[in-house]
Amino acid sequence: MPRPDRRAPDALRPYAMQRHFQRYPAGSVLIEMGATRVICAASVEDRVPFFQRGTGEGWIAAEYSLLPSATSTRTQREAVRGRQNGRTQEIQRLIGRALRSVVDMKALGERTIQIDCDVIQADGGTRTASITGAFVALVEACASFYEKGGTFPVRDFVSAVSVGVSHEGAPILDLCYEEDSQAIVDMNVVMTGDGRFVEVQGTGEGRPFSRAELTTLLDYGEKGCRELISYQKDVLGGELVWLVGRVG
Amino acid sequence: MPRPDRRAPDALRPYAMQRHFQRYPAGSVLIEMGATRVICAASVEDRVPFFQRGTGEGWIAAEYSLLPSATSTRTQREAVRGRQNGRTQEIQRLIGRALRSVVDMKALGERTIQIDCDVIQADGGTRTASITGAFVALVEACASFYEKGGTFPVRDFVSAVSVGVSHEGAPILDLCYEEDSQAIVDMNVVMTGDGRFVEVQGTGEGRPFSRAELTTLLDYGEKGCRELISYQKDVLGGELVWLVGRVG
Amino acid sequence: MPRPDRRAPDALRPYAMQRHFQRYPAGSVLIEMGATRVICAASVEDRVPFFQRGTGEGWIAAEYSLLPSATSTRTQREAVRGRQNGRTQEIQRLIGRALRSVVDMKALGERTIQIDCDVIQADGGTRTASITGAFVALVEACASFYEKGGTFPVRDFVSAVSVGVSHEGAPILDLCYEEDSQAIVDMNVVMTGDGRFVEVQGTGEGRPFSRAELTTLLDYGEKGCRELISYQKDVLGGELVWLVGRVG
Amino acid sequence: MPRPDRRAPDALRPYAMQRHFQRYPAGSVLIEMGATRVICAASVEDRVPFFQRGTGEGWIAAEYSLLPSATSTRTQREAVRGRQNGRTQEIQRLIGRALRSVVDMKALGERTIQIDCDVIQADGGTRTASITGAFVALVEACASFYEKGGTFPVRDFVSAVSVGVSHEGAPILDLCYEEDSQAIVDMNVVMTGDGRFVEVQGTGEGRPFSRAELTTLLDYGEKGCRELISYQKDVLGGELVWLVGRVG
Amino acid sequence: MPRPDRRAPDALRPYAMQRHFQRYPAGSVLIEMGATRVICAASVEDRVPFFQRGTGEGWIAAEYSLLPSATSTRTQREAVRGRQNGRTQEIQRLIGRALRSVVDMKALGERTIQIDCDVIQADGGTRTASITGAFVALVEACASFYEKGGTFPVRDFVSAVSVGVSHEGAPILDLCYEEDSQAIVDMNVVMTGDGRFVEVQGTGEGRPFSRAELTTLLDYGEKGCRELISYQKDVLGGELVWLVGRVG
Amino acid sequence: MPRPDRRAPDALRPYAMQRHFQRYPAGSVLIEMGATRVICAASVEDRVPFFQRGTGEGWIAAEYSLLPSATSTRTQREAVRGRQNGRTQEIQRLIGRALRSVVDMKALGERTIQIDCDVIQADGGTRTASITGAFVALVEACASFYEKGGTFPVRDFVSAVSVGVSHEGAPILDLCYEEDSQAIVDMNVVMTGDGRFVEVQGTGEGRPFSRAELTTLLDYGEKGCRELISYQKDVLGGELVWLVGRVG
Repeated sequence: MPRPDRRAPDALRPYAMQRHFQRYPAGSVLIEMGATRVICAASVEDRVPFFQRGTGEGWIAAEYSLLPSATSTRTQREAVRGRQNGRTQEIQRLIGRALRSVVDMKALGERTIQIDCDVIQADGGTRTASITGAFVALVEACASFYEKGGTFPVRDFVSAVSVGVSHEGAPILDLCYEEDSQAIVDMNVVMTGDGRFVEVQGTGEGRPFSRAELTTLLDYGEKGCRELISYQKDVLGGELVWLVGRVG
Repeated sequence: MPRPDRRAPDALRPYAMQRHFQRYPAGSVLIEMGATRVICAASVEDRVPFFQRGTGEGWIAAEYSLLPSATSTRTQREAVRGRQNGRTQEIQRLIGRALRSVVDMKALGERTIQIDCDVIQADGGTRTASITGAFVALVEACASFYEKGGTFPVRDFVSAVSVGVSHEGAPILDLCYEEDSQAIVDMNVVMTGDGRFVEVQGTGEGRPFSRAELTTLLDYGEKGCRELISYQKDVLGGELVWLVGRVG
Repeated sequence: MPRPDRRAPDALRPYAMQRHFQRYPAGSVLIEMGATRVICAASVEDRVPFFQRGTGEGWIAAEYSLLPSATSTRTQREAVRGRQNGRTQEIQRLIGRALRSVVDMKALGERTIQIDCDVIQADGGTRTASITGAFVALVEACASFYEKGGTFPVRDFVSAVSVGVSHEGAPILDLCYEEDSQAIVDMNVVMTGDGRFVEVQGTGEGRPFSRAELTTLLDYGEKGCRELISYQKDVLGGELVWLVGRVG
Repeated sequence: MPRPDRRAPDALRPYAMQRHFQRYPAGSVLIEMGATRVICAASVEDRVPFFQRGTGEGWIAAEYSLLPSATSTRTQREAVRGRQNGRTQEIQRLIGRALRSVVDMKALGERTIQIDCDVIQADGGTRTASITGAFVALVEACASFYEKGGTFPVRDFVSAVSVGVSHEGAPILDLCYEEDSQAIVDMNVVMTGDGRFVEVQGTGEGRPFSRAELTTLLDYGEKGCRELISYQKDVLGGELVWLVGRVG
Repeated sequence: MPRPDRRAPDALRPYAMQRHFQRYPAGSVLIEMGATRVICAASVEDRVPFFQRGTGEGWIAAEYSLLPSATSTRTQREAVRGRQNGRTQEIQRLIGRALRSVVDMKALGERTIQIDCDVIQADGGTRTASITGAFVALVEACASFYEKGGTFPVRDFVSAVSVGVSHEGAPILDLCYEEDSQAIVDMNVVMTGDGRFVEVQGTGEGRPFSRAELTTLLDYGEKGCRELISYQKDVLGGELVWLVGRVG
Repeated sequence: MPRPDRRAPDALRPYAMQRHFQRYPAGSVLIEMGATRVICAASVEDRVPFFQRGTGEGWIAAEYSLLPSATSTRTQREAVRGRQNGRTQEIQRLIGRALRSVVDMKALGERTIQIDCDVIQADGGTRTASITGAFVALVEACASFYEKGGTFPVRDFVSAVSVGVSHEGAPILDLCYEEDSQAIVDMNVVMTGDGRFVEVQGTGEGRPFSRAELTTLLDYGEKGCRELISYQKDVLGGELVWLVGRVG
């Protein structure tokens, strides 16, 4: 049976990123993956969390939120309920780990890059879109204070994508909400520019999954991440691509 | 001394609204007033707060939030701090009152229209832009369940604008952030389509203001609100304009 | 139709203030406006909020609360619910702004005057009574550390009163709860001793209000504030009146 | 060495109660014990907590709070901090238990009497003054719905007082703040009209206390409670005194 | 270089489970994996969360907590801080998903099994030990209400174990805290009795990991889970093992 | 009528303590009083609360919690509800006061001993068992930093026990949960090694109690505390017993 938008099982949805989306943060990107839209901002602060103080090293912190109007049924505002729920905290921990995995904290110096991923429309894959978009905002933010000849803090690319097993048992790449809500296996893959994994998180929602299924899902995830990293390079342009990973 | 963008003292900034900005809510508008940008969504829920239950009447509730990345210096996320601050609560109470003033709760029936104003870029006047934009989203939302021949719940137009006395003592209309942060008097005016006031809130931030100054500020406020209501009519188009205020 | 207590439309209720109402705070006043009773205390602290540190300037902070037993139906205690609601925060922000408008922060020095307005009986106009009473407590508190020859931090008088349009369409001054709960327009006016406005906050609760109505409400508000400032002078006595606004 | 106000070791401070202190609650008393002043209100609600629902029985709930301005150094407002501290909770649990011990929950019917003890000036013994004053407000509140011939829900008197061992080792009755803050043993005694104990809470703050000391403290506590119950009878007057404990 | 306790890279630590550890819950197990000790309790409640009401289906909910004294440096108590942190919420979501994956919610009926995993000593692998131990408590709890001839709600076994890449680059099974804190890759594997995966969560803490490393880690994880399931069977005994997965 | 376990009215339940129950805290004891089991840990921190800073003195702080699975009906987790309830706070204040009464804060130096009492099974008397067990953990913790020749910070023994009046009117010692839930008087007694009281807290739950009853309850309490102190000495052994109260 075909996918809702007739995509191939291993095809991404149409995607786009708009750089400099907001005026004030040092980095700001609007990423779209199908109907999913996330504003990813990167702000630079000249202080670090207490556990990094005096080490000369920096930090990357991430926050994630859904606009109440982003979902098909309105979501309660977390500021009104007075706390972030478990899902939100899990996602912002994931985003932070993914971005930190490609950053040289020494080269960053005693700075915090505060990442804000605010979902303005949610159609599946918001956490992986957040990582892919926030990476570009992070590079923009680091370029804002980079001084020629120094070590650029971002050492490699990183992107993320969701994969899963559809309710009909077929492995698929980049699930939209309709597919995600019915999937029997759900997996997020985060990969670096050198083709290695930062995160592999697979969950058997409807039933456990076999080793063979896992292998196909990893193949699809790799394919999706590679394509997105290629697009990140297009969007950033030659000069910034050259900085990433370069030792001054 | 001229204004930062060389506007006349009684001129609005360039403005625009984009309807159907989001896919899921019944009404959704992106409003821009200069560099200020607010997503205004209106969601319909088939239940009412406890104090309206069993009355056959509906309710309009409003929430307001700044994206952390919307401000020149990053703003702490209220969901992280665990509570909405006083300014946020004051603003969302104002938005709710302004919109309720033009709605016939009986005609609305036992429904809540939940208004969400999420500021994605803040350059002054976010609360008044929220009201002006949310009005259009509210009309869209009411049209989504309106049945021909019934009473349309929205009975009149409503818009809002800020006025103030600049740090040089001159009355000005529609202050940008730079003007607002230095103003010695700050006022918000909310007006209906029939030229009457819903709210007048003036504060002498730097010094008290005279009765004569108040008169000029009200004149400027009226002028700005009238222009914005005229634009709301253009954006909504003839059919929806005809519904507002019409008795079936 | 007459008012519940047969007052003239532009008449205040009977009022009184009792100075030195509590033993410990530097300033303490019990104000009564009709059946409304508020304990207004002013405490002096030798530190300032973080945003004033190192500036040599002081601050005036205000808190407001209703005793649960102050209202005709018992009000839930905010300490039990775990947060102050929007109305409370709006009121305490208003009280703080009103008092700060007549204080010279440099002359205050690095001190905070903490104002506490605790309503022990609420019959309308509690926020305006709080401002009028707290002003007297503020002067008492400043006198407690004033050294002869210096600049007295309080530079002018400030008082506040409510005005409104009754449910029968008549403008009225100083609404009691019965009038307030039915009013179609509700306005608070805060005025200084030199006859200028610090705050004008008008809301069309039941319907919008016209420019002509606004003019009458401002006239009534001015009249009420002038009478209350005259009474503040009686209560403070010649020596303290002389200090207010005097440059040493 | 004499006590600060030269009282005998087993003497109470001057005391007074003012009935009908507030307009709205069914019972309202201002109690003064020396400089300690507490507003004790009793409000009647026609519902009961979940654990009493459907039993036909009522409940007595108590809340306690210090006005920030009530103490020699200003106390932080619990509504601002967002939670009641341990001391507050301990006190309101004590007040509730003390009053419930003399109430017939069946005779009360499915009602909650909500007791609010708000301290407007604190000079030691605020929790015991709260109990003594709240008892009178409770009787007033029960009289407001009592129907002739029925069983009056309050079956006996209850009062409370503090006793302690001074820093010089002498047992004393009804400690003021100065004595309390230096006491080496601190005890609260709650007693009914028939001379039995509802609560005995003694703490060795500075050192443990012997069985002999405990005996003297209990003697002093009994003496104080008896005198206060006698005063409660004077204040309530013959008709209400006759109702307490009477079976219809 | 050898492991701290000289184990083989693919060896588990000594493990043990004590059934009926507590008197009150329907299921209660103390699990030890090396020095890690977790009390796993399963309580049966005759109601379900709102999203399962009226469906005839049950639910498994899980909570997780560290005793403050369980860690090498004392951990702040979450009840004191007033909220559960992100790590805690992530873990309890994982435990819940793992157990739900082997339960037939229809056969459970309108009941909630509330799982409580309280860590009394933490030496690495507390979340996986929680899953392995809670499974046994869950079977005990289901046996407490199982009626002969019905469908037993637990359909398969489930166990969990941690694997990782040591700081020297070697894949290892069942990391103790010392190993875990230095590991460059950290992975949790949850597996069912039929050899399929419920969860695979791998994170490159120190550097990304290759597909080849992932393969070895999955092999080690499978080996560990199989051994633990074999032990779960020993501990449960023939009768309960027979019930799991059996259709009546 | 006999007690549920046929004990004499003035007999303790079987009791036991296991020292070094946990690996990480400086002191750790598992205490059992009948079916009540509490883990008591004492952790040493090299800082003091703000009110002790710079005084050269230390502090003893205590926290108390019930595992949700410890009670006959599962108790909601306080970390989930977001605050500690009044009962918990009352208990941890009691434990702290009891232990501080036998500690020389000067000899402790600028250290905090953090006591954690976590109840893993609750069958009445958890607060008194916590005190008795925590005392032993406290001595262990102080021994961990004691330097020969100095003053040992713990100067005397302290233990605690519950007493009460059964629903049949008989005084009893060391109530189990079944007795406690039906008792008409409930009292906790905390006593030092020299036979004096630190705390006496008696409450008439079902009816007030007479002076004569109080006398018997104190006798029983003394008896129980003496027996428990004797057992504390056995458990600690000669060397540590010798240190307690010794001046170097």
